[in-house]
Amino acid sequence: MATLAALRSLGSHRLPQLAARVAAVRHGARRWNSGVTRDPMTGELTSVPNVEPSQVKISQSSTPKPPPDASSLVFGHTFTDHMLTIPWSSGSGWGAPEIKPYSPIVLDPSATVFHYAQGLFEGLKAYRDANGRITLFRPDMNMKRMNNSAARLALPTFNGDAVIELIKQLIRMDKHWIPDKEGYSLYIRPTMIGTQAALGIAPPSQALLFVICSPVGPYYPQGFKPVALYGTTEYSRAAPGGIGAYKLGANYAPGVLIQKEAAKKGYVQNLWLHGPEHYVTEVGTMNAFVVFKHPNGVTELVTPPLDGMILPGITRDSVLSLARDHASGKSPLAGMPEGKFEVNERPVTMKEVKKAAEEGNLVEFFGTGTAAVISPVDRIGYLGTDVHIPTGPDGMGPVSRAVWKQLVGIQTGKIDHPWSVVVA
Amino acid sequence: MATLAALRSLGSHRLPQLAARVAAVRHGARRWNSGVTRDPMTGELTSVPNVEPSQVKISQSSTPKPPPDASSLVFGHTFTDHMLTIPWSSGSGWGAPEIKPYSPIVLDPSATVFHYAQGLFEGLKAYRDANGRITLFRPDMNMKRMNNSAARLALPTFNGDAVIELIKQLIRMDKHWIPDKEGYSLYIRPTMIGTQAALGIAPPSQALLFVICSPVGPYYPQGFKPVALYGTTEYSRAAPGGIGAYKLGANYAPGVLIQKEAAKKGYVQNLWLHGPEHYVTEVGTMNAFVVFKHPNGVTELVTPPLDGMILPGITRDSVLSLARDHASGKSPLAGMPEGKFEVNERPVTMKEVKKAAEEGNLVEFFGTGTAAVISPVDRIGYLGTDVHIPTGPDGMGPVSRAVWKQLVGIQTGKIDHPWSVVVA
Repeated sequence: MATLAALRSLGSHRLPQLAARVAAVRHGARRWNSGVTRDPMTGELTSVPNVEPSQVKISQSSTPKPPPDASSLVFGHTFTDHMLTIPWSSGSGWGAPEIKPYSPIVLDPSATVFHYAQGLFEGLKAYRDANGRITLFRPDMNMKRMNNSAARLALPTFNGDAVIELIKQLIRMDKHWIPDKEGYSLYIRPTMIGTQAALGIAPPSQALLFVICSPVGPYYPQGFKPVALYGTTEYSRAAPGGIGAYKLGANYAPGVLIQKEAAKKGYVQNLWLHGPEHYVTEVGTMNAFVVFKHPNGVTELVTPPLDGMILPGITRDSVLSLARDHASGKSPLAGMPEGKFEVNERPVTMKEVKKAAEEGNLVEFFGTGTAAVISPVDRIGYLGTDVHIPTGPDGMGPVSRAVWKQLVGIQTGKIDHPWSVVVA
Repeated sequence: MATLAALRSLGSHRLPQLAARVAAVRHGARRWNSGVTRDPMTGELTSVPNVEPSQVKISQSSTPKPPPDASSLVFGHTFTDHMLTIPWSSGSGWGAPEIKPYSPIVLDPSATVFHYAQGLFEGLKAYRDANGRITLFRPDMNMKRMNNSAARLALPTFNGDAVIELIKQLIRMDKHWIPDKEGYSLYIRPTMIGTQAALGIAPPSQALLFVICSPVGPYYPQGFKPVALYGTTEYSRAAPGGIGAYKLGANYAPGVLIQKEAAKKGYVQNLWLHGPEHYVTEVGTMNAFVVFKHPNGVTELVTPPLDGMILPGITRDSVLSLARDHASGKSPLAGMPEGKFEVNERPVTMKEVKKAAEEGNLVEFFGTGTAAVISPVDRIGYLGTDVHIPTGPDGMGPVSRAVWKQLVGIQTGKIDHPWSVVVA
């Protein structure tokens, strides 16, 4: 535990504040002090209590609901019997976690989340495999990204492993909510909001981390259905120096209108094309991938680089990793195109995509995300004309099909892999 | 009232939805139908009920608090006894407004505002003048901007005049909270949030408009104190095609970290410099103004144009209007610099500001906003060096001083003007 002497070196002007925190740790809160956290005001490490799973208070719902018939599920409309909450305050750090009946959040009307979008979230899924085992897919990646998002908003960071332990405990309590049906899963939504009751625009002195769970069906219940995208050049999702690389609420509400405008024009989703060069960035709320077959025979899988405008998707990372292991020969994927295969994170313009389509060099175009895993695209409306993209009889292309099979195999426990973390 | 026949022309695919709305209007809700509102899904005019002041339900607080001593006020930490709420749903439009005791907001944990930043706000002040009259400053501008923000987020729009009427009613109930002291006022915070309990990213089917009030003191209790700004080139606040021109929560939380970084470097606030050209855009959460004295003798007041990246500030608009009336001779302001005076909304780079400072042609630099009205700047940290800006003994410059006197005179009722709207 840091001492006042050690803290003194951080700068005398912050002493009273730090002294108060040390006092908070000393008087009663010490037992929760399982690690360090970062001060959202300064980015410095502090010694206030971190999330401590052993302190969890559990209260069972006295009115558990029967999980609904799986076939009636609509994404994100049904929630399980319990939720996880972990309060935070600048004075005393992370408080005791609580797993309790799913219940409303009660906030002062001046709470910062209502006014300044001090909120961020994650999305991951718990799967039930053929042997009845329940697993999570790469939850450490979600916790890492959630901490990055929190730091970007000057909200508190936390011990990700501790929160994963608590999420596992929540899932074990509500595991009967995971439909025992191919392609179904439990969608887990960790969220963090600023809850301080004050209108000043500042790092909030109070925050709440909460996790809710929703049983969900397959994104494509009748097999893959490629989507048509409207290439959006009138609006931008993100910009250099902005917040596009963070999973903040602020990145999502502004996209609703743009999605609606795409729908009005007859497209399913929009494709964000950035700047006068019309760089391909994201597909609605998914990462974008393009496959070219170059005249020299090379098949190239391309996704835009993490330049600050692209969300570091966990499905994106997984697709890149599996594709690179194929390209290097380390772990070849069945069904991939013959010949040399390259994987590149590089800028790609819509002009390049269009030219490749016209010259017969475009193999496929797809989006990736937790909800759909892979979403094939068969058409992009661009500056008044439609660019057509090949898809196979199953709706997919050769690269996405091969990667998808491996990825879903890992996620559903059919293929053993360290990315799959056993919950129960 | 729209009929099914009239609605049919809007497109047959939307008929069931529209029919349901028409039915809602016909059965019981018709009495609130004081006007039209815009369908957030389509942008089309609909006939669901708009906000109707005559339907307001009023419940007095049974435990009114004594307003605190004015000198102890901290911005946005104290709220009055009552609040205004107006619920909205896609099926039945705006419901009956309610003025009720200030009380918590209770929402499902899946409410869209917590996850996707479906929220926006306004800020305006009620002033008590020397004759005891209470006035609002240009509230129609706030309602217009709030409707623009709502449309941008696919949240419902509303009859702004009706909401002003209800805000007046709220202020009359809590008018004893406006401190009877020079420079004090009641800060009014209209807010709208998406409240639907569902994780899909879509226009919410439920929303809440609410208004809370907070007594506030003068921004500069000891007279003007010019601030030092850090010229931020590493981050951007807004981008072409983005949301910078709307008063959305999403524009505010991301700025907290940048403000903190400026503070760590020894500056009070940050100045957003956009793009490789380092265009001056905004001062923290205020609009930016520069005054040049050109070698040809012309004094020029400049503010960046409303190009989609700049918030259309009401103080900004008022400063421009008063300055233009001076420039044209329509309504000269006392104390302005001698000679030709020009007012321009045009792009201005930090390089131009720096050069003018070095050549002795920079007269002043200031921010404008509802909270501070005018905030003079005396120093800008730019690429490692400080650009110094002249200020007078009172902390102001000649243009901002003259405009501020007129503006505050109007706001506080010392000068009669149509911008000042009587509440009580």
